[in-house]
Amino acid sequence: MAAAGSLQNLLKLGTKIVGVGRNYAAHAKELGNAVPKEPVLFLKPTSSYLENGGTIEVPHPLNSLDYEVELAVVIGKTARDVPENTAMNYVGGYALALDMTAREIQSVAKSAGLPWTVAKGQDTFTPISSVFSVSMVPNPDNLELWLKVYIPAFCYSAIILCTLGILQVNSLFPPN
Amino acid sequence: MAAAGSLQNLLKLGTKIVGVGRNYAAHAKELGNAVPKEPVLFLKPTSSYLENGGTIEVPHPLNSLDYEVELAVVIGKTARDVPENTAMNYVGGYALALDMTAREIQSVAKSAGLPWTVAKGQDTFTPISSVFSVSMVPNPDNLELWLKVYIPAFCYSAIILCTLGILQVNSLFPPN
Repeated sequence: MAAAGSLQNLLKLGTKIVGVGRNYAAHAKELGNAVPKEPVLFLKPTSSYLENGGTIEVPHPLNSLDYEVELAVVIGKTARDVPENTAMNYVGGYALALDMTAREIQSVAKSAGLPWTVAKGQDTFTPISSVFSVSMVPNPDNLELWLKVYIPAFCYSAIILCTLGILQVNSLFPPN
Repeated sequence: MAAAGSLQNLLKLGTKIVGVGRNYAAHAKELGNAVPKEPVLFLKPTSSYLENGGTIEVPHPLNSLDYEVELAVVIGKTARDVPENTAMNYVGGYALALDMTAREIQSVAKSAGLPWTVAKGQDTFTPISSVFSVSMVPNPDNLELWLKVYIPAFCYSAIILCTLGILQVNSLFPPN
């Protein structure tokens, strides 16, 4: 079981979300990007968190958002300049998250050499599951993550609210 | 006088720093950028705050950082979709800040359409002054901000630590 209250701690105490981009070779290829030599880091504000069961908002005048399911690594202690061989000591847990992206806005920003903030950082753009303890995820490098997406047809004509299948965000450990 | 403890509140409770770029026409021109139709927003993490009197760190292997003095607008209440005519109700105070930028890293990121996170978000990259109350800054649109920079010569050969003149960050209200 996930530690009780740990999601609330994350939502209350967390101060940043660091996204790592282009570290998933198949996705980089899908978008026509080269896999970079260094990780691509981007920030999302904690105001973009959305608790499980919440409603992802598609900002006007967009009709849809891109979604990517992510393994969120919860850093449990303040850390800096940590060597790789002790890095795992700072992991306080894991969660499933969605990284919602307004791809059209991001494409314009990329072409202009501008930040991805508006494309990645809006309210509800980071749905997040409960936090799972480290002991529940013994092999974080070898997990199958999946997401079921349910987009009611009317969403594409409505302006603001689409309910994606984030009930499934908790599917890292499906009930037996 | 600045409200006692308000900087500590900002450092303790703040969850994001939203930078607004290219809103200063002369600086956009200096860097050869067009002034955009919409504000350019970028995020800095609160871990980049540095209290007055602290030491700005120049990350290896860089020799220097760009500095810009900024009027920091402290948002004092949670807010969203605020109309312009009530926006000032959410301003809880002001501060002087420096926005430190690793310009070489930013230039490479811009060319590649990548985020500015590493160029803007590192520890000590946002020196910040005390917080001044709203009543002390009756005309935030008409302020002269200035910064005295003191860079000891040895900094350019040292790897890590440079002391810039951030004692002057408090100069918004110089002592009488």
